[in-house]
Amino acid sequence: MSNTRGKETGILLVAQVICIALFGLFVDYDASLAPNANSTQHAAELELSNNLYPLFQDVHVMMLIGFGFLMTFLKRHGFGSVGFNFLLTAYVIEWSTLVNGWFALIGSGSKIFLTTRSLLEADFAVATVLISFGAVLGVSSPVQLTIMATLEVVFYNINIYVGVVKLGALDVGGSIFIHLFGAYFGLAVARVLYKKGQTDHEKEGSVYHSDIFAMIGTLFLWLYWPSFNAGPVEGADRHRAIINTVLSLAACTVTTFAISTATDKNGKLDMVHVQNATLAGGVAMGASADLVVHPFGALLIGTAAGILSTLGYRYLQPLLQRTIKLHDTCGVHNLHGMPGILGAVASGITWAILNTSHNGRSGATQGGYQIAAMTVGLALALAGGTLTGFLLKLPVWDNLTTDELYDDDVFWECQEGESLTQYTLTQCQDTIEDKDVETPADGSEAAAK
Amino acid sequence: MSNTRGKETGILLVAQVICIALFGLFVDYDASLAPNANSTQHAAELELSNNLYPLFQDVHVMMLIGFGFLMTFLKRHGFGSVGFNFLLTAYVIEWSTLVNGWFALIGSGSKIFLTTRSLLEADFAVATVLISFGAVLGVSSPVQLTIMATLEVVFYNINIYVGVVKLGALDVGGSIFIHLFGAYFGLAVARVLYKKGQTDHEKEGSVYHSDIFAMIGTLFLWLYWPSFNAGPVEGADRHRAIINTVLSLAACTVTTFAISTATDKNGKLDMVHVQNATLAGGVAMGASADLVVHPFGALLIGTAAGILSTLGYRYLQPLLQRTIKLHDTCGVHNLHGMPGILGAVASGITWAILNTSHNGRSGATQGGYQIAAMTVGLALALAGGTLTGFLLKLPVWDNLTTDELYDDDVFWECQEGESLTQYTLTQCQDTIEDKDVETPADGSEAAAK
Amino acid sequence: MSNTRGKETGILLVAQVICIALFGLFVDYDASLAPNANSTQHAAELELSNNLYPLFQDVHVMMLIGFGFLMTFLKRHGFGSVGFNFLLTAYVIEWSTLVNGWFALIGSGSKIFLTTRSLLEADFAVATVLISFGAVLGVSSPVQLTIMATLEVVFYNINIYVGVVKLGALDVGGSIFIHLFGAYFGLAVARVLYKKGQTDHEKEGSVYHSDIFAMIGTLFLWLYWPSFNAGPVEGADRHRAIINTVLSLAACTVTTFAISTATDKNGKLDMVHVQNATLAGGVAMGASADLVVHPFGALLIGTAAGILSTLGYRYLQPLLQRTIKLHDTCGVHNLHGMPGILGAVASGITWAILNTSHNGRSGATQGGYQIAAMTVGLALALAGGTLTGFLLKLPVWDNLTTDELYDDDVFWECQEGESLTQYTLTQCQDTIEDKDVETPADGSEAAAK
Repeated sequence: MSNTRGKETGILLVAQVICIALFGLFVDYDASLAPNANSTQHAAELELSNNLYPLFQDVHVMMLIGFGFLMTFLKRHGFGSVGFNFLLTAYVIEWSTLVNGWFALIGSGSKIFLTTRSLLEADFAVATVLISFGAVLGVSSPVQLTIMATLEVVFYNINIYVGVVKLGALDVGGSIFIHLFGAYFGLAVARVLYKKGQTDHEKEGSVYHSDIFAMIGTLFLWLYWPSFNAGPVEGADRHRAIINTVLSLAACTVTTFAISTATDKNGKLDMVHVQNATLAGGVAMGASADLVVHPFGALLIGTAAGILSTLGYRYLQPLLQRTIKLHDTCGVHNLHGMPGILGAVASGITWAILNTSHNGRSGATQGGYQIAAMTVGLALALAGGTLTGFLLKLPVWDNLTTDELYDDDVFWECQEGESLTQYTLTQCQDTIEDKDVETPADGSEAAAK
Repeated sequence: MSNTRGKETGILLVAQVICIALFGLFVDYDASLAPNANSTQHAAELELSNNLYPLFQDVHVMMLIGFGFLMTFLKRHGFGSVGFNFLLTAYVIEWSTLVNGWFALIGSGSKIFLTTRSLLEADFAVATVLISFGAVLGVSSPVQLTIMATLEVVFYNINIYVGVVKLGALDVGGSIFIHLFGAYFGLAVARVLYKKGQTDHEKEGSVYHSDIFAMIGTLFLWLYWPSFNAGPVEGADRHRAIINTVLSLAACTVTTFAISTATDKNGKLDMVHVQNATLAGGVAMGASADLVVHPFGALLIGTAAGILSTLGYRYLQPLLQRTIKLHDTCGVHNLHGMPGILGAVASGITWAILNTSHNGRSGATQGGYQIAAMTVGLALALAGGTLTGFLLKLPVWDNLTTDELYDDDVFWECQEGESLTQYTLTQCQDTIEDKDVETPADGSEAAAK
Repeated sequence: MSNTRGKETGILLVAQVICIALFGLFVDYDASLAPNANSTQHAAELELSNNLYPLFQDVHVMMLIGFGFLMTFLKRHGFGSVGFNFLLTAYVIEWSTLVNGWFALIGSGSKIFLTTRSLLEADFAVATVLISFGAVLGVSSPVQLTIMATLEVVFYNINIYVGVVKLGALDVGGSIFIHLFGAYFGLAVARVLYKKGQTDHEKEGSVYHSDIFAMIGTLFLWLYWPSFNAGPVEGADRHRAIINTVLSLAACTVTTFAISTATDKNGKLDMVHVQNATLAGGVAMGASADLVVHPFGALLIGTAAGILSTLGYRYLQPLLQRTIKLHDTCGVHNLHGMPGILGAVASGITWAILNTSHNGRSGATQGGYQIAAMTVGLALALAGGTLTGFLLKLPVWDNLTTDELYDDDVFWECQEGESLTQYTLTQCQDTIEDKDVETPADGSEAAAK
């Protein structure tokens, strides 16, 4: 039996005390945020912060509303989807501020200085964790998720250190370092945690209204994605990234509708595709969002992402489930994994075609390093995820039984009548009883009452 | 029988290929977005883009969440409302970038150069199409909607060319060119598509939770409307437009509540009014949002819009339905049509009263041109919509039968138990059967089992 | 019997006419918004407005979506929650523009000049009223709410005049002047309006989907709260306020989850805590958001707020209900009242510790004035609320009977089948009848039909 009391309370409170202490030792405001900061340099930095803040808020909406509601499609797991998404976001904002900061200090400095940009970078770590969460949605306890997040933030930073600092890969929108990494890390965890009875579970699946709730998540992710891909750069680069991402997403969405109906046996559309595959254009655009791919190039990338992701949901996901027992609740492989690879490859090709030199490298060489970073990211994600998965499998972390999967009742206090279904059923029974009284078949019941 | 496979897939894929080719031929980034753009002029343009971007994102939310959820009020059409709204938005972003761009090239230039402002202008074309969509919600197939959008974007640009370029009308928030045009275009299409049985259909209407979903749309439209009306202008004009729009919407909302309860036979409020008529203040403020109407003028315009729109929903819409067989699913005539006319007239009067000269014209003359542009817009919308309607009536575009109206099952794959109602009913039946066993009226049933 | 027609219509229309007249007499645009404003000073003011606008829009979302949906947790009061929240917001934007403006004129000037900042200040008055609304949610008529809002805006300004102008307290995020004041004002009203049968009412409580709707409100409040606390200040102060608020909220959320499960008898999480107590970190951070509390200080304040608020919901609220008949529908005492006091005290301590002089006062002295303003605010809120409560109790304002509590049917036109439950029950009954026909217990019924 699972239970969040005890272990989860303990872990969270200990984490909280440790975070406060470490923030006291290591973290302070950037010099540009001092009360009397007024040098020219500080003024320029503040203007960048002013310009960045609306984009950060868009990304913040993507984390909490976007990911949170996208996951509410499950009929009996709405509280857990939006609730644990909320908890993980809050926790990872604290924890990744420390870990991101420490990695940035490698080689120089001893203190982490925060600006509004640090918050955006914290949200990028959050996004990575939430993608992995999608792979184990409904099959993991909050204790397991908290531990997963703690470890994943470290692996995430190792991967960035290798890929960006050492290999010099460029990935403004995180195709490689966020989407690909988060997806394959989560998939490795999911594979290790797999248990019989997880597939074709009666509580897995959506109901009418839960699918509409999920669309709130989809649409906020879709429309704020340009801020996600453009936030880390400034000036002309930022606005190119915005335009490329809007176009890629539009193309991806049109394509997703076309492929969804084309591949359905009744020619109907599938809400799973509309909720998810429409977003693959944002993922695949990430690594080349700020490059001069030209508007038609953005449409091409988005179109390819829509086809790849929709086909992934339709054919590959059930295949992987049957053959290698990979259960991927939200289909993150189709939305983040494969489109992340596509994004990395697209950026490699773009660098090779544009052939503009960068940091003393030719465009073709830079393209090669993009692919190298993708390969390293894939390996690190699978290794880190597998390791984490085996740790989570230890029988001390509130493992779920098959009966407890995809069900809010396990971790959430549901009052009598909390469930609309239950409420209706109670009234339904009352109706039946009333009816029995009013139109007794043989009079005996009414007499008995 | 309707079916999105085949035709819809074909149309979307062909459109996608054509768009990619035409973008390759005609569309590129603006010079200010070049990687090494750093002239003073480019810096000034980038600052405008930086200032515009948050307003564009607000408008983007209005398109996808605002319009999308506003239309989810129908009890069995939530997927279609939010889903086709999504598809149309994505498709029109691509298509209107081309058509808007070509019209802007008339007389000079051969290439379309994109900035963040181009995205805002694409969203304005999207808004026009989505307003028309509201008039035929639930009674049109995605194939019909895609064709309608394709044609409407062209008519929309013809109307702007005549009204703005030729007549010199000014309409910052699109009272005339977006709301009035989109509404009457859609109403003409709806009238032509009208079929018996469409009215008083059992599936038309809302349920409790669908009305709450719709309020998500209403509120995001309401609160981001100032960005819609203020986006196209800058500096002092922008902030006047913001203040005027906030005040007009506030006045409109208070008035809507007052009129809604006053005109109900039980003195109760009607969710249809609260969801829709509260927004008419934004529509009516559009054409004079950046003028010096003074704060009390904004309140006056909003108050008039609230009265007009609520009375339209209460009395005019059922009358038009009975008398001229005009079925307007979302009541766009009350929310966009009449308030659009009010906005045009208000701008004409404001120009005449303020009597500031503009482009060599007296204020009174400019006021006259505002009314002229309104008249032309009305004529073009009705003509274009009628033409489009007859084209859509051809029996090749997945026309809906009466049984298929307002129903997601026609175009969406609904899994067993997808509907909460259905899920509950299944459990309800189980309960009844269990009950029969427990309290058999005469024992025979239990024995039989 | 309650009814919004007549009284509510009359009050709103009279208010509307008075507002238009008073706006005509007293309100105009600021000089920086004149069509030809182009002095250096005006340019600087416009830049501040440009920077402020995205933050204002975030706060605007908090009012309409945040507060509006947070209150939809009640199973039969979704229309009233989101609808009256909408009405109050619109009305208070108009009314507080006047009252805020008049109070700012004390001592000098005769006209109210609007900028985008005026809209932010109007929203702060709105927030105060909406907090009070939470205390009487479901137990008050729209007539009562409109009158309460009218009076509260005046008391709110008196309190600011005393606390800020006279005592010189500093409270950028409104811990004292918005949260504490709005909460205790509302609680006083709620206590006076208390009637037997209000507690343990069968319609009070949530259902599964209403709890998910409420999370939309929670998350938008949570993620845009940094804009609320940072909006009134600029430059480095604004970005410190943003960082402090994000960190405080993150810490508060982690703590809330820990305490919620720790104090539940089954070790489960409570949605009430996750929906509400997670936000207390924003409230408590308010009065010191722009101070140099350092990042670890922000975490400390957030942690304390999470503990205080969760324990308040768990233990104090039921106690107050039993002992002093204080029924607080949304628990505003736990979310705004106590965390507001905590925020005031934290600001006092911070001023004393930092000991930076301000306006000729030592830090310790300023800290004392923070506590003084808190005490005055508490007294004024309770006095104003009590007075208002007794006025609202007069039997002329559509008082609700016990049967009418927490029920949309009282004020909203609900079509046949509007309620999903009702819709399902009707179908359920049909099923039962069909079943009776198909498997009659003794054949008599089928024969009878």
